[in-house]
Amino acid sequence: MRAERTQAKQDRAVRTRRAILEAAAVVFEERGYGAAKLTDIVELANVTKGALYFHFDSKEDLAQAVIDAQVIMHAPVTPQEFRAQEFVDVGMVFSHRLRYDVLMRGSARLTLEQNGRELDRAAPYQGWIDLHTALLVRAKEHGELLPHVDPAGPSRLVVGSFAGLNVMSQTLGLDLDREISALYTSVLPSLVVPAVAARLDTAPGRGARVLHGTDEAPGCDCSSPSAPVPAGVG
Amino acid sequence: MRAERTQAKQDRAVRTRRAILEAAAVVFEERGYGAAKLTDIVELANVTKGALYFHFDSKEDLAQAVIDAQVIMHAPVTPQEFRAQEFVDVGMVFSHRLRYDVLMRGSARLTLEQNGRELDRAAPYQGWIDLHTALLVRAKEHGELLPHVDPAGPSRLVVGSFAGLNVMSQTLGLDLDREISALYTSVLPSLVVPAVAARLDTAPGRGARVLHGTDEAPGCDCSSPSAPVPAGVG
Repeated sequence: MRAERTQAKQDRAVRTRRAILEAAAVVFEERGYGAAKLTDIVELANVTKGALYFHFDSKEDLAQAVIDAQVIMHAPVTPQEFRAQEFVDVGMVFSHRLRYDVLMRGSARLTLEQNGRELDRAAPYQGWIDLHTALLVRAKEHGELLPHVDPAGPSRLVVGSFAGLNVMSQTLGLDLDREISALYTSVLPSLVVPAVAARLDTAPGRGARVLHGTDEAPGCDCSSPSAPVPAGVG
Repeated sequence: MRAERTQAKQDRAVRTRRAILEAAAVVFEERGYGAAKLTDIVELANVTKGALYFHFDSKEDLAQAVIDAQVIMHAPVTPQEFRAQEFVDVGMVFSHRLRYDVLMRGSARLTLEQNGRELDRAAPYQGWIDLHTALLVRAKEHGELLPHVDPAGPSRLVVGSFAGLNVMSQTLGLDLDREISALYTSVLPSLVVPAVAARLDTAPGRGARVLHGTDEAPGCDCSSPSAPVPAGVG
């Protein structure tokens, strides 16, 4: 009985921490790091200030956790016939999740901001680069890459380009999924051997197909490039 | 005599406006839009508050002018044998100028920030996209592009990717010129016919070669990826 109670307590703590993280992401996305207030986060998460301070030391600590969530909470890569497809899928899945996952959206905004210099923004870039590089190293071992390709270069290119295409798409009201699809379509011919390139799926909607087995996420208005912000914030 | 005096006055006004713009860019780059103060800008530009308000209505007006300067004050494209080379040169020259031109650096930071929602950040993206598209349309007319290429798509790709590679390079301490060079090297094979692609210069240092006819800008420490910030700010 005691073990069950302890387990229930731990589950509740995990759920509370997650609720605080998501509320923080929503407020950070809406207001930015500088203007975000812990009172708004507490109210949106429907927790006490004590609960917030049990999980996070400060606004900085909370923002850092939101930033780090981007890579840590990325969906595991679904195994595919080609490692090069898994390389593509990382970005296509992230592009898809940015439509509806408030944690990913808040994390992306904080990573691109330059306010709050005490925050470590190198970690998500480096985390994404490492993940992409590892997949390309395996693709190379399987003979999927052109002979001259060094896995680290294209990984930096894709990660940096993704970040900018995301900001530009938000600013101009473009469909990020289409822009990221075009990025892969453009980059792959100088990366992957033609026989493999011809069999990779880089079409818009790829992220949804990998995650949900369909072009649309269940219960998400994926026709809109922007997820709605919950009422009461902004 | 009167005409000469009027001309001298106008010259002085142009110089003062430029000094205010550059000082504003330095302060915006260092502090961001929200935290930047007009008193710091006035002090750094060594002008009176009256002079600032003669040229700009408000901090918002000044920030918008810094943002717009990015495209308006871009160096004119130097004619080359291939239009595709001119397309490459736009980004390589901008990448080079970001090393030492405080106005371009401040402008880039303000464009990527998401604070100050009253600012129009679409204009520089759209301006760059239009410039790139016009060059690719001419490249296509000259038979330099692969038959299926639509000039607008690669222009959006290059402009968005550039923005993200710039932020990532700053965050990770990478050499932007090398990353932008890799962007073109990767994208061009799916854009330009092979006979032209083989003759394009996309190597790091291209921007300096176009602007100054040498790999380094005169009087600029171009070995450092970051230009020094003038003393007294930050």
